[in-house]
Amino acid sequence: MSDNNLINLLRRRLPAHCLLFHPEDLRPYECDALSAYRRLPLVVVIPETLDQVRATLQSCSELRVPVVARGAGTGLSGGALPLTDGVLLSLARFNRILDIDVDNRTARVEPGVTNLSISKVAEPFGLYYAPDPSSQIACSIGGNVAENAGGVHCLKYGLTVHNIQKLEILTIEGEPLTIGSEALDSPGYDLLALLTGSEGLLGVITEVTVRLLAKPETAQVVLAAFDSVESAAAAVTAVIAAGIIPAGLELLDNPAIRAVEKFVHTGYPEEAAAILLCELDGTREEVAAQIERTRTVFAQAGASDLRVSRNEAERQRFWAGRKAAFPAMGRLSPDYYCMDGTIPRRHLAKVLAEIGVLSAAYGLPVCNVFHAGDGNLHPLILYDANQPGELERTEELGGRILELCVAVGGTITGEHGVGLEKINQMCVQFNGDELAQFHAVKQAFDPHGLLNPGKAIPTLQRCAEFGALHVHHGHLPHPELERF
Amino acid sequence: MSDNNLINLLRRRLPAHCLLFHPEDLRPYECDALSAYRRLPLVVVIPETLDQVRATLQSCSELRVPVVARGAGTGLSGGALPLTDGVLLSLARFNRILDIDVDNRTARVEPGVTNLSISKVAEPFGLYYAPDPSSQIACSIGGNVAENAGGVHCLKYGLTVHNIQKLEILTIEGEPLTIGSEALDSPGYDLLALLTGSEGLLGVITEVTVRLLAKPETAQVVLAAFDSVESAAAAVTAVIAAGIIPAGLELLDNPAIRAVEKFVHTGYPEEAAAILLCELDGTREEVAAQIERTRTVFAQAGASDLRVSRNEAERQRFWAGRKAAFPAMGRLSPDYYCMDGTIPRRHLAKVLAEIGVLSAAYGLPVCNVFHAGDGNLHPLILYDANQPGELERTEELGGRILELCVAVGGTITGEHGVGLEKINQMCVQFNGDELAQFHAVKQAFDPHGLLNPGKAIPTLQRCAEFGALHVHHGHLPHPELERF
Repeated sequence: MSDNNLINLLRRRLPAHCLLFHPEDLRPYECDALSAYRRLPLVVVIPETLDQVRATLQSCSELRVPVVARGAGTGLSGGALPLTDGVLLSLARFNRILDIDVDNRTARVEPGVTNLSISKVAEPFGLYYAPDPSSQIACSIGGNVAENAGGVHCLKYGLTVHNIQKLEILTIEGEPLTIGSEALDSPGYDLLALLTGSEGLLGVITEVTVRLLAKPETAQVVLAAFDSVESAAAAVTAVIAAGIIPAGLELLDNPAIRAVEKFVHTGYPEEAAAILLCELDGTREEVAAQIERTRTVFAQAGASDLRVSRNEAERQRFWAGRKAAFPAMGRLSPDYYCMDGTIPRRHLAKVLAEIGVLSAAYGLPVCNVFHAGDGNLHPLILYDANQPGELERTEELGGRILELCVAVGGTITGEHGVGLEKINQMCVQFNGDELAQFHAVKQAFDPHGLLNPGKAIPTLQRCAEFGALHVHHGHLPHPELERF
Repeated sequence: MSDNNLINLLRRRLPAHCLLFHPEDLRPYECDALSAYRRLPLVVVIPETLDQVRATLQSCSELRVPVVARGAGTGLSGGALPLTDGVLLSLARFNRILDIDVDNRTARVEPGVTNLSISKVAEPFGLYYAPDPSSQIACSIGGNVAENAGGVHCLKYGLTVHNIQKLEILTIEGEPLTIGSEALDSPGYDLLALLTGSEGLLGVITEVTVRLLAKPETAQVVLAAFDSVESAAAAVTAVIAAGIIPAGLELLDNPAIRAVEKFVHTGYPEEAAAILLCELDGTREEVAAQIERTRTVFAQAGASDLRVSRNEAERQRFWAGRKAAFPAMGRLSPDYYCMDGTIPRRHLAKVLAEIGVLSAAYGLPVCNVFHAGDGNLHPLILYDANQPGELERTEELGGRILELCVAVGGTITGEHGVGLEKINQMCVQFNGDELAQFHAVKQAFDPHGLLNPGKAIPTLQRCAEFGALHVHHGHLPHPELERF
């Protein structure tokens, strides 16, 4: 197919104002939030109606042109990075909230609606949408579903997959499918979970029905300081083992605390090796009871400083430092790279220590600010892209950290997805049979491989080039990690 | 292939005591708990090792013989019904608990382990496995995963899919795949959810890692009586809308209450149109606070009688009637047929009224005992299989009830699965494109269709013969339901 064929076909089928071809118009779509990778697409399509989305997909199918769907472009793993010979399909104009069903506690929304706007519209009814990625003011619900997005409150309320009930999608051939239902279970294979987190490789989401929760009556935060990362990590395990399910349980290590305090002065104890922020929510009675139990557990785990937020303003202040952590890093270093791996909680202390060793070996500082309760690490590697070779060294260190997560029985992503960023580490996570099974599932939805090719699931050839062997019952590319 | 080829091959590859051929040995495997359907398999294989399971699957693959996996045989939808020309693969000897990981709060078990035995082994550590199907003393965890089993406590703690973390499976070719991980998220497509509830059509489960929860400190039950089913149904919605998440919220209608009281004399109010049993669990303080709020909500919803269990013995007594409900029906009627559909909660009253209308039209009594909080109905149709035509009329009424669930935006199964029982109603639930997508997924795992063929997902031809049209934006086979 020649590029002109596609453009001519799209011009016949869609209004002119829905199509962008000129390089200056394409520029805003060259990357998502993984901005180290940039590419201009052949054409950007910004449809306004479902028929136009269908026409776009049918055109791509007929001419075998790849298509990358894009929500708000806030993804951190390069999932919406365009292809130079493909269509970038923006769902930005699908931004209407279609229905709030208060009795059934669901909202039916278009995919371009932002995460936070759902909670805003639900607020008068005392309801909200629980998953809260850091980008929630900007990120779209369609992108949240594609990446199975998480957030601070996912420890108690689950990831995106646990908070949606129904999807309308279009297949690459433009066929509409209803996946899931308004009721709490659905017969047949669980395609709702399969589509969630499939990173745009199986279909294009055109409507999402999310679950809404009742807003908790109150919330309080316990801030606890520890003299060692080990004791903070042990306190995380102890809280969960005590049967307490915090709404959020976050850890900041000393470099992160210092960076934050320089930036926003929230009053975190700057000498602490680590602090934990533990939020409890529910009715006043429940929260009061749980706060007491959490204090006791933290004290027994050796907390040297224990504070409880006394009112909503103080709770917000306790969180302000955590929320400012990423921008704060931007002041310490010209660039930073945010990793995303998940490990069994019992290995927290060991893995943080090993990240310290790797950080020293690579000569690149690493700060840790992360969802400790879920074992979801977000090491931030500080670097300077203007120093020759430093980006490459940073990416290599990032890869080593992810392989360390796999070595202790963890995974290479908690909530950011694989995208282009972690495609090599997928070869470490899975063996050839498992990757072949993923490709067979892809084939069942998209036989010609036109939806977001090159992302999420590596080809076996790519893994052979990367030189990785899967690690369960096998060997790591870096044998020194085998002691885990 | 001739039957002898398979039997000869299995004899060469497996020890003699793992194979059953004689009709009298096959008889115990002729059905599962949907005993209206019975068939003798060609051969029963009861392997003791993973290699033997693999050899069985490889033999079936090579000779293109269908294979049906079976756990404890307690399934209610006929998922483990054998095929006369196929292998019945029993996982009964895989009954070891391999590991309890207290820090990480998981248990690694073989598929033949019973649901309840996991909680028993975890008990000394203060942990338990939450999903609790009525058959939990007998049903196996492998079967629970295959059917995505539920139970009374799934309202708060989720279905099986929300309580497992990792599976080891064998494909039909005998290849081992690790699905999910020890960490809380996994990259790639969500095959863990896809396999869960896939009713034995995608792979054979050989190991399950389940999540364990801390046992709640205490639990109490509120028993509330209502003068109308409508007000009980409204009370269900009101409790959920108040942000209370009960550990269980069950409804019994008057015919069910009377049947239970005749049988076990638990002291349920026999004149009530419906009762609700609402369990709250957690710490003493939390439960005390929630009990008060639940009492208030029920009182406002018009409860005529409100009791709260004062101790563990009384809590058990409140539940005893609910637990005896199914055996109690066995005293009222020679046979009963337990349906399983799920609807959006707001339609509870309307659907229960319509079931009453259908019951009268068919001249078959229906009792309702069900998981009201999830909108998961279990209408029990009372009939006598010895009366000519009565089983057929019962099945027709059951089908109509399921189609009613679909018509209000619900689904044809909450926790029992589709199996053979509801295969026609799948044609009502899904359209041709959606069924074709299910078949494509099946093809990705089992290209020759050897795993449990004829169950769960109907062929398009079967749907054409059944004469059903899908109902979203379409027409129901029974047009009078269109008013919903």
